[in-house]
Amino acid sequence: MAELKGNLVVAQSGGPTAVINSSLAGVIQEGLKHSEITGIYGALHGIEGILYENLIDLKKEDSQTIEKIKRTPSAGLGSCRHKLTTEEYERIINVFKAHNIRYFFYIGGNDSMNTADVVGKMTSEMGYDLIAMGIPKTIDNDLEYTDHCPGYGSVARWVASSVRDSGFDTEAIGVVDRVKVIEIMGRNAGWITAASALGKKEESDPPHLIYLPERPVSVNKLLDDVEKWFKKLGYVVIAVCEGVKGEDGNLLSASAASIDTDSFGHVQMGGAADFICNLIKEKLKIKARFDKPGTIQRMSMALVSEVDLNEAYMAGKEAVKYAMEGIKGKMVSLVREGDENEYICKTGLVELDKVADAEKLIPDSYINETGNGVTEEFYKYALPLMGGPLPEYARFKKFQVNKKL
Amino acid sequence: MAELKGNLVVAQSGGPTAVINSSLAGVIQEGLKHSEITGIYGALHGIEGILYENLIDLKKEDSQTIEKIKRTPSAGLGSCRHKLTTEEYERIINVFKAHNIRYFFYIGGNDSMNTADVVGKMTSEMGYDLIAMGIPKTIDNDLEYTDHCPGYGSVARWVASSVRDSGFDTEAIGVVDRVKVIEIMGRNAGWITAASALGKKEESDPPHLIYLPERPVSVNKLLDDVEKWFKKLGYVVIAVCEGVKGEDGNLLSASAASIDTDSFGHVQMGGAADFICNLIKEKLKIKARFDKPGTIQRMSMALVSEVDLNEAYMAGKEAVKYAMEGIKGKMVSLVREGDENEYICKTGLVELDKVADAEKLIPDSYINETGNGVTEEFYKYALPLMGGPLPEYARFKKFQVNKKL
Repeated sequence: MAELKGNLVVAQSGGPTAVINSSLAGVIQEGLKHSEITGIYGALHGIEGILYENLIDLKKEDSQTIEKIKRTPSAGLGSCRHKLTTEEYERIINVFKAHNIRYFFYIGGNDSMNTADVVGKMTSEMGYDLIAMGIPKTIDNDLEYTDHCPGYGSVARWVASSVRDSGFDTEAIGVVDRVKVIEIMGRNAGWITAASALGKKEESDPPHLIYLPERPVSVNKLLDDVEKWFKKLGYVVIAVCEGVKGEDGNLLSASAASIDTDSFGHVQMGGAADFICNLIKEKLKIKARFDKPGTIQRMSMALVSEVDLNEAYMAGKEAVKYAMEGIKGKMVSLVREGDENEYICKTGLVELDKVADAEKLIPDSYINETGNGVTEEFYKYALPLMGGPLPEYARFKKFQVNKKL
Repeated sequence: MAELKGNLVVAQSGGPTAVINSSLAGVIQEGLKHSEITGIYGALHGIEGILYENLIDLKKEDSQTIEKIKRTPSAGLGSCRHKLTTEEYERIINVFKAHNIRYFFYIGGNDSMNTADVVGKMTSEMGYDLIAMGIPKTIDNDLEYTDHCPGYGSVARWVASSVRDSGFDTEAIGVVDRVKVIEIMGRNAGWITAASALGKKEESDPPHLIYLPERPVSVNKLLDDVEKWFKKLGYVVIAVCEGVKGEDGNLLSASAASIDTDSFGHVQMGGAADFICNLIKEKLKIKARFDKPGTIQRMSMALVSEVDLNEAYMAGKEAVKYAMEGIKGKMVSLVREGDENEYICKTGLVELDKVADAEKLIPDSYINETGNGVTEEFYKYALPLMGGPLPEYARFKKFQVNKKL
């Protein structure tokens, strides 16, 4: 057991998710069990809460609130995106000293892991005993050294379900809007967009085309892809990552100028889906419309993955348990065990500085050869994360009545 | 009981919804009970399925499929938006005669009610016995002579839940994106956008501002509204109907030219939310982003309203029962009974031609005086439709730790 006695502070950073509060609840509920932890403080709006001494006393919150927070999306403590200067790091350590903070848990992505790492190393150099630990959180699923990230399974479920729903819509409406483009979050890594495939059963199910930032998109190839599917089915559903790039390496929407500046003068300001819709309308003369769900996708408790929610909670709890063993300077990772028939997830540990510097893109083996879809291997990886299959929908077999006229 | 013996045809029209298939299942399952109904056919893609004789035999589908269709969003028979010419009406009646169709059920909005009405009257004039009945369906909730429309309760639940989620996101992320604009479906009637208020408990809960097509929006007033809320909370969530109009009566996005054509050159092509974001960035210098969930909002089985689903099913079943009594030329309406403590909904009947010509906008008493929100009366009307309250989320009470530095 750790000898270190003092207060604990926990903070949340980066884009909120459906389950970042589950990790927070895990930290609080585990923290309450250990006598070494005298006070449990929450920093409001991430590292800024420490910087400006905006700390709240989480022990004073009633236990029902903590229990409910587990199933409340978004960041209950507030979030931030703040890159600290050297002076600010010093100030933070002074705040830690002033409040006898001995345990620091930062729930976030790789920038947050970097912050936790630097804070831990600086205090160590100064001879101030502090245990800094990282708890992973990102819908983007782009952290290295962890099988996957808390937050991803839930956004994957939302995207799989909503793209399937939106695809059924396009299939039914037929002649009115024949092409639907759905713009999905992600800057450099296409993990969330890839999850749009998880509601598919047949190759002909929507989405028919998936474009990821890992593969530059040729505008002509895209038009060929759309035309092929359109001829086959009479409608096409496309999932496109907002960060998808053109062959010149720029954001696809920025390559508007290379096609028809007159008709596409506004496109440069729009997103990838808007751009693709205009392209299809202009070049293929087919009506297209887009959905851009934006932040709604990362925050839905109605479509939360129970697997994700439980793992996020586990990561929070385990971080405290590791700290109680005296472990520090690490991020809790998720480690997949079991086999194809049984998905088992446990926690592991990884150095904070290793995580801070890395970004995990989708591996080649998960993307199909033509760069417009995913492979079986991706399904094997991602399906268990979204917490059970989607509810089954029915289609009529459509026994044709003989024509009489 | 009706003496009329022959085949039944059912068709779906207009934008799909989460529950239009529940009405379809109601028609099929009730139809199976009556010996007067010899065959049960589905027309593929609405009236076009009859026009082109694309009929399927629904009696050949197994009963499990029908049961599952009840909980499958979108239009299982396919939908259409087709305005018939006189020649096409004649062709349709010839198809009816050729297939001995004696019962015609059309599930749709006011255009579909018009089609059903004309078909019914034309066959009557020609002395061909046909019972044509309408079953209401529209997320827009804009049909007159019915308390509300099947499809609305579910989109209301989706919008209330998603705007609340997205609002929590904006609240947490604070300094990064301070204003969130969510664009919601609706051309002339703002019913769906108004439903964004249904997840609110306190006045300060998102959405803070709701703009509806029923009230022209003054750009300056909008900027004042945003600034007021921004000063109060540090963030603002806005729900805006895609069909919202400016003071000149044109779509708000079309009034771009009147502010700053250089910076807003692309806005004319964008939607209301995009326009408002640019306006806020330009005039208030506050970062704003928008979500445009599009067709995803009308198709979610995960956020279906059980009340809506059951009523849609009831409307389908009752339409067949009424037809069996010899009633024709009517749309099944939903009639609210009970009082404030108990919501009860039964069916009624209304002439098809009355429904066809009317559009129900939100009454004045449901919109607040300043035209940027809804009233208590709206809550009383709409809350029961979304099928129970949203799951409760928790907020910390935030007991501040005394500052020491």
